[in-house]
Amino acid sequence: MNLKQAISDKINSKTKPLGALGKLEEIALKVALLQNTLSPKITAPTLVVFAADHGIVAEGVSPYPQDVTWQMVMNFIAGGAAINVFTKQNGWNIEIVDAGVNHHFDENLPIRNLKIANGTRNFLYEPAMSEAELHRTFDKAEALVNEIFMSGCNCIAFGEMGIGNTSAAAVIMSKITGLPIHKCAGKGTGLNDDGLAHKIAILQNAMQKHQSHSAKTTLQTFGGFEIAMITAAILKAAENKMLIIIDGFIVTAALLVAHCTNPEVLDCCIFAHQSDENGHKAMLNYLNVTPLLQLNMRLGEGTGAALALPLVQAAVNFLNDMASFDSAEVSEKS
Amino acid sequence: MNLKQAISDKINSKTKPLGALGKLEEIALKVALLQNTLSPKITAPTLVVFAADHGIVAEGVSPYPQDVTWQMVMNFIAGGAAINVFTKQNGWNIEIVDAGVNHHFDENLPIRNLKIANGTRNFLYEPAMSEAELHRTFDKAEALVNEIFMSGCNCIAFGEMGIGNTSAAAVIMSKITGLPIHKCAGKGTGLNDDGLAHKIAILQNAMQKHQSHSAKTTLQTFGGFEIAMITAAILKAAENKMLIIIDGFIVTAALLVAHCTNPEVLDCCIFAHQSDENGHKAMLNYLNVTPLLQLNMRLGEGTGAALALPLVQAAVNFLNDMASFDSAEVSEKS
Repeated sequence: MNLKQAISDKINSKTKPLGALGKLEEIALKVALLQNTLSPKITAPTLVVFAADHGIVAEGVSPYPQDVTWQMVMNFIAGGAAINVFTKQNGWNIEIVDAGVNHHFDENLPIRNLKIANGTRNFLYEPAMSEAELHRTFDKAEALVNEIFMSGCNCIAFGEMGIGNTSAAAVIMSKITGLPIHKCAGKGTGLNDDGLAHKIAILQNAMQKHQSHSAKTTLQTFGGFEIAMITAAILKAAENKMLIIIDGFIVTAALLVAHCTNPEVLDCCIFAHQSDENGHKAMLNYLNVTPLLQLNMRLGEGTGAALALPLVQAAVNFLNDMASFDSAEVSEKS
Repeated sequence: MNLKQAISDKINSKTKPLGALGKLEEIALKVALLQNTLSPKITAPTLVVFAADHGIVAEGVSPYPQDVTWQMVMNFIAGGAAINVFTKQNGWNIEIVDAGVNHHFDENLPIRNLKIANGTRNFLYEPAMSEAELHRTFDKAEALVNEIFMSGCNCIAFGEMGIGNTSAAAVIMSKITGLPIHKCAGKGTGLNDDGLAHKIAILQNAMQKHQSHSAKTTLQTFGGFEIAMITAAILKAAENKMLIIIDGFIVTAALLVAHCTNPEVLDCCIFAHQSDENGHKAMLNYLNVTPLLQLNMRLGEGTGAALALPLVQAAVNFLNDMASFDSAEVSEKS
């Protein structure tokens, strides 16, 4: 009997009507298959928040000033952001990474310094990063994921902070899915209708200026350092057979790029939530996946992923800890 | 300034775009209003599972034998059921109540003995319970909720176990909402299409035999002891201003009855999930509420409510623990 059948049999032996735990049964099967066991475990779950700045903010695509990126990084390390509250509550380790923030952080602060540059260049005029910079983001992110994996973590999630990064993610989405930019760009942190129209016009203009014929070139031309690092981190985590809990719009944009390189990354992914940011639902449809949560959230930072962990844990726990009809001496269906 | 405005201001001062935490912001507001404070707390959350048997099972409305009710109660106290796994994981106290199981449990077992009778009568032929029995279910359930409240619990949920109870709940739903029985009855623990057609015919027949002109009479004529106790428990919990996390089809049927008595119970209720049992979505629509989770679950026991607690806790935690733009020195939107 193959493992998949054995896992399904174990799920069906539990004291509940067949299929009655719905999506939790799908997750239990997925995690057990990924870990190649009938008794999966979540160990040292770790959420990595990558922060970086974006040259495109010079075009007025966000209502918040760029300084909010570094200010929020300081908020993360002080423990005052939503992602701190949710990771603490749900038992995640948290790592804060400077992937390319336009600010000098004191080296004594608990921030992983993987800085590539003080933000990307303005992709309305030139590629956001050079090919060499893109390679460096990959190298650094891969090394970080390997370090986290070697420390005993088998479940990872990614968050992000970067004023302007919904613009970068929207272009990546449009390029990869083929959907027009107005179906991909949204209000981000809170643009009004005029602001959104301006953002779409800027992005349309930028897309006409640059050719990009591969996902990798798209990432280099329009991406951010945090988005590129998340792409690399997803690919490396999948190589390590880690369970990856996918957050919202930005992280799913990074996954779209990773998916072009290796479609099998999806075997490692659980989709935490559907963001309220315009475009995320279409991204999930493109990947043909359904998220666990729909809470009308649109905050980023990895907050959706952080909130989904108890559901993933519940799936693992029922598979390990529930009694079977036999062991509990409960009568089965006639 | 009134409390509602003060709570909203506190939510909006947090370091996040306005409204970016979606439904969690609604929950934070609801819990704070209910507790009449800017700093709500969840204390000693308790999930009470009421078990009882149903005379209507003699008509073949469930594919499982009635013995499964008492066998599952034994499974609950042994810790082997899904509700045990989820309550343990998420920090719930759990209480198991014999509301009227057709079985004699040893008095030394950790089961609350609130037994009214060894199951209800078969409502195809006679009312499920007498008026005196209904009063006793209310008295006993109210006393239990008060005891739990006095012990320091301010957040309660209810689960149920009772082979045949989706039949009782479907009739209650049909009587209160006015929807035809075939829109209310579902496959329960796993009837096939023929079984469902038979169940609907039986329930239709029973509804034609008995008049019931009030929610209370409906509860007495078609209800179960566990459903009646949950109705009473909801009303008493609301009187105590406890937060009530509402589970699936059976518990929402009990809430429909409670809502007829006191529509303001909804101010205390958070809807945990939408069950896959046919009818639950229509119940939620009737009450004009949206659930937190949609996981395609249909297990009962209170499992949906148990899984929703971390989201409710996250709402309370962000309200209490997130930094404000001022305190974190983060720039606001321009």
